[in-house]
Amino acid sequence: MATRAMPVEVQQLLGRPNPAVMVTLRKDGQPVSVATWYLFEGGDIVVNLDASRVRLKHLRRDPRVSLTALAEGDWYTHVSVQGHVTELVDDVELEVIDRLARHYTGEPYRNRDNPRVTARIAIESWHGWGAAAQR
Amino acid sequence: MATRAMPVEVQQLLGRPNPAVMVTLRKDGQPVSVATWYLFEGGDIVVNLDASRVRLKHLRRDPRVSLTALAEGDWYTHVSVQGHVTELVDDVELEVIDRLARHYTGEPYRNRDNPRVTARIAIESWHGWGAAAQR
Repeated sequence: MATRAMPVEVQQLLGRPNPAVMVTLRKDGQPVSVATWYLFEGGDIVVNLDASRVRLKHLRRDPRVSLTALAEGDWYTHVSVQGHVTELVDDVELEVIDRLARHYTGEPYRNRDNPRVTARIAIESWHGWGAAAQR
Repeated sequence: MATRAMPVEVQQLLGRPNPAVMVTLRKDGQPVSVATWYLFEGGDIVVNLDASRVRLKHLRRDPRVSLTALAEGDWYTHVSVQGHVTELVDDVELEVIDRLARHYTGEPYRNRDNPRVTARIAIESWHGWGAAAQR
């Protein structure tokens, strides 16, 4: 659960198909960032990874993540959330990656060959800037 | 020094005024991400922070950072670098933040009131995706 209630405008911003960057931790604690699709569902962040990704190994070892979503066309407005992975689930039917692809592109996901894993992330803290700044 | 030579196209991409997200580490190792301006200068990443920022405290404690730059208008193309801060220098004349502001907005930085600090980041590793993917 988030430490502070999230205003509805911030929730609405997070709900859009924004460019986003996700951070995981290497074994030695070095942070590693990468652009990602995400969904904001039921107050959680949901991402979906190719099962072969190093990021997934990071998450199994240390569930702590950070994610920054940039408002499309006005990235001075952005929201960052810190949290941890609460669930890693095989996306056997590619249902979640299709949901993500439709959210971002309007189409199902093209690559049907690689196994994928869904990570659900509980938000512990968040900060907003620009139009999403704290009041 | 980077572990792999960076192709000129990746260097050119990093040299543009891209939306970017920078990651620092909290005392407990939790990663914290935030949108940022940056410069790519002499093979290093240069950022500039308000001297009151918590991020600066993070960097003084643990110099490890990650930064992801998204190509404007096509953020499937992105470059992520991992590295560490090699220099923290007071930006007494606001010369570096003006350089950043001109790079991103064409104008000098508006707020002349707050002290600022420049962080120079040596790149240890990098990855590219999309048009910046490794060859």
